[in-house]
Order: sequence, then structure tokens, then C-alpha cells
Amino acid sequence: MPDRCVSKQTLQRLPAYLNYLRSPQAVGKYVSATNIAEALGFNDVVVRKDLACVSNLGRPKVGYVRVELIRALERFLGYDNTQDAVLVGAGKLGQALLSYGGFPQYGLNILAGFDCDPALAGKEVAGKKILPMDKLPDLCRRVGVHIGIITVPGAYAQEVCDQLTGSGVLAVWNFANAHLHVPQGILVQNENMAVSLALLSNHLREQFSTKGNGK
Amino acid sequence: MPDRCVSKQTLQRLPAYLNYLRSPQAVGKYVSATNIAEALGFNDVVVRKDLACVSNLGRPKVGYVRVELIRALERFLGYDNTQDAVLVGAGKLGQALLSYGGFPQYGLNILAGFDCDPALAGKEVAGKKILPMDKLPDLCRRVGVHIGIITVPGAYAQEVCDQLTGSGVLAVWNFANAHLHVPQGILVQNENMAVSLALLSNHLREQFSTKGNGK
Repeated sequence: MPDRCVSKQTLQRLPAYLNYLRSPQAVGKYVSATNIAEALGFNDVVVRKDLACVSNLGRPKVGYVRVELIRALERFLGYDNTQDAVLVGAGKLGQALLSYGGFPQYGLNILAGFDCDPALAGKEVAGKKILPMDKLPDLCRRVGVHIGIITVPGAYAQEVCDQLTGSGVLAVWNFANAHLHVPQGILVQNENMAVSLALLSNHLREQFSTKGNGK
Repeated sequence: MPDRCVSKQTLQRLPAYLNYLRSPQAVGKYVSATNIAEALGFNDVVVRKDLACVSNLGRPKVGYVRVELIRALERFLGYDNTQDAVLVGAGKLGQALLSYGGFPQYGLNILAGFDCDPALAGKEVAGKKILPMDKLPDLCRRVGVHIGIITVPGAYAQEVCDQLTGSGVLAVWNFANAHLHVPQGILVQNENMAVSLALLSNHLREQFSTKGNGK
């Protein structure tokens, strides 16, 4: 199966395809790149190329067997291969993520939360323990945790990131508003609300300036 | 001041510049594109061009007055111009966003939450009311709300999105795992955790295959 051909743009589209294929709108045994492209408003050449990276089981004029394509996408996206993670910062956002029941279907299992606040240590959120920070390196190394989720305030994010990478974490999911420096080979995936808000705000400004409400 | 030259890529970098300029690392009255580029690990030609879109007050060899550049970035990003928003779906993630104290500094003011669960109606989260869905169109139209935040399960997201755009919302911030169809002129900004997890998972797979732990 082709593997290394995939770009970040392709990777960003694949979850949408999977989501569509699992939805009630996708009916029938077979599905084609054209069906998916139409349903999602994408270009069908793009969809065809993306799917060719994931599975070579598509047949001309017929397309893919839907359940086979779902399985191929899940495998390709790593959703069938659960990764353990730890979360640091058990405030409101951290607790929301700890309680979120949807991660296992994407192959993510949050083992525990960590927080420097002694009042939180020992508490449980949705069955997950909140532990003091000094337990972090030991747990990560013992279990072989490779994903760290950062939900602390921005000012503490770099320090937490250093602790995570120092404990064997290879991929950091950063919800803090901070630009993180990491050693080579470590991925930082930023979930940056400030960027999203800037894009929303810019869109509104453009909408209003088009309508002549002033710049 | 130049305005329309800005690309989405530029817009995505600007909040990082602002964040750096506000941080304790950025000291002194003046700051240059080179300083920012070095601090954030960006290319300094890119930073110089980005800043030129935002402010023409930079001087050769000196750079920008730091507080002036901060103000120019805030204005450009719309953070100085508060937008009212409503949130639909007052589950754990919705309540975390309602409680998040950091939005006002990005120019976002969540007026209220909405939920179809009658048990939640009338409750307050961090001083924000949770209202029943039938109050949504009236509030949006009365106050002139242009931003809608969707934190319902994926299966309900399209229906909620239609209600929001039908009530005058022009920009949708979507946290649900669903591909939304919207009328022309409406922006959907997806906060897609599934995509982030796929990128993390792909990175780990590449790390392990490089290390020879099998493909």
C-alpha cells in the first residue's frame, strides 16, 4: 500500500471523509471519490488522489466498498491503534478534555491528568485521576507515554513542555496560548484559539467592509 | 495603512507575534522583525512582510516601538473590537468555553449558552445564562450577534448551524466533529480535534518507522 505520499493537506482532509463515510448520509455498499466530493463540496480529483494514498482497493466505475474504506482510513489515521496520553493542567479546559468520551474512537486514551495545585491532587474526573506533577516523569517512562496534552496557562506552557519531552513524550498537543520550543523530532500540534478568533474577526471585518459599513 | 494584502498564513502568524510582544521575554522600548523572528524561530523576511501589512511605523535599523506594534496588531486582529457571540451546546466542552476567562482579550464576548436539554435551562455557568433553544433567534437578532459557537454532538451540528445562520450569524466557530454546509458569505472555522489527533498519530508512526520499530 502507498504510504509516504501523504501531505499535511491530505491528512487534514481524511478525517472529514471518514466522518462522512460513518454518517447516516453515506448509504449503500459502495462509495466513490465523486460521491464523497459531492457530499463535502470538495474537488473530486483531490478526493480521488487522497483516497489513493490510503487504499488501492478502489475499482473503476464502482469505487470502494464502504466498510473497507472506513477501515483503511481508520488504520491510516492511526485511530485503530490506541496511544496513551497524559494531560497537564486540570483546570476547566483540562477537565473538559479528561471527561470527553470521544477520544477513544480517534485512538487516544488519556491515562491521567496532572496539576501543580495540591488541592486537585487525588481528585478524579470522569474516572481519571489527577496526580501531582512530581509523578509525571515516572508514569510517562513506566507506561511509555508518547503524547502529552498541555492545558495550563500560557506562562507555564514551556516549562510543562520541557517536562513532558524530558519524560519521553514525542508529540505535544498544545492548548495553551504560547509558542513552544521543542527538541528536533518532537511535534507540537497547536490548538490555538487566538488564531481561530483572529480568522473569525477578520472575516466579519471583510463582510462589513463589503457591505459598506466602513473599514 | 495597508490592509487587504494579508493572507491566511499571515493572519495565522500574527497572534504568535502579539503573544511574544506581550510576554516578559520582550523587553525594551523597540522591537524589530529580526528580534521576533529569532525569538519564535521564524524566517525574518516572512516576519518583516507580515508586520508591514499591520503597521507602517517601523523604522530602518530601529524597528517598531513595542507598545505601538502591540496596539497595531490588536487592532488588525480585531481584538480591540469586541464581538458578541452565542454558544450552542452547554455540555462539558461548552461549559468549559463559557467559563474561560481569556476570550475578552481576543475581542470575544460570549453572551449566553443555549441547550435543548430542559434540565440545563436557567442554569448559570460563570455568570452566563443557559437558555432554551427557542430563545436563540430572538436574542441573536435583538443584540445583532454575528458569531455562533457550536459545541453540540456532531449529529446535531448542521441543524444548529442552520439555526444560527438563520438568526443572522455570519461566522461559525465549530467544535463539533461534522462538516458543515453554509450559505455563501458565512465563514466556518473548524476546531477539529480529529484532524489534530490524526496529525499527532501520523507523526508518531513516522518517528517509530524511522527508528526501525516496524512500519
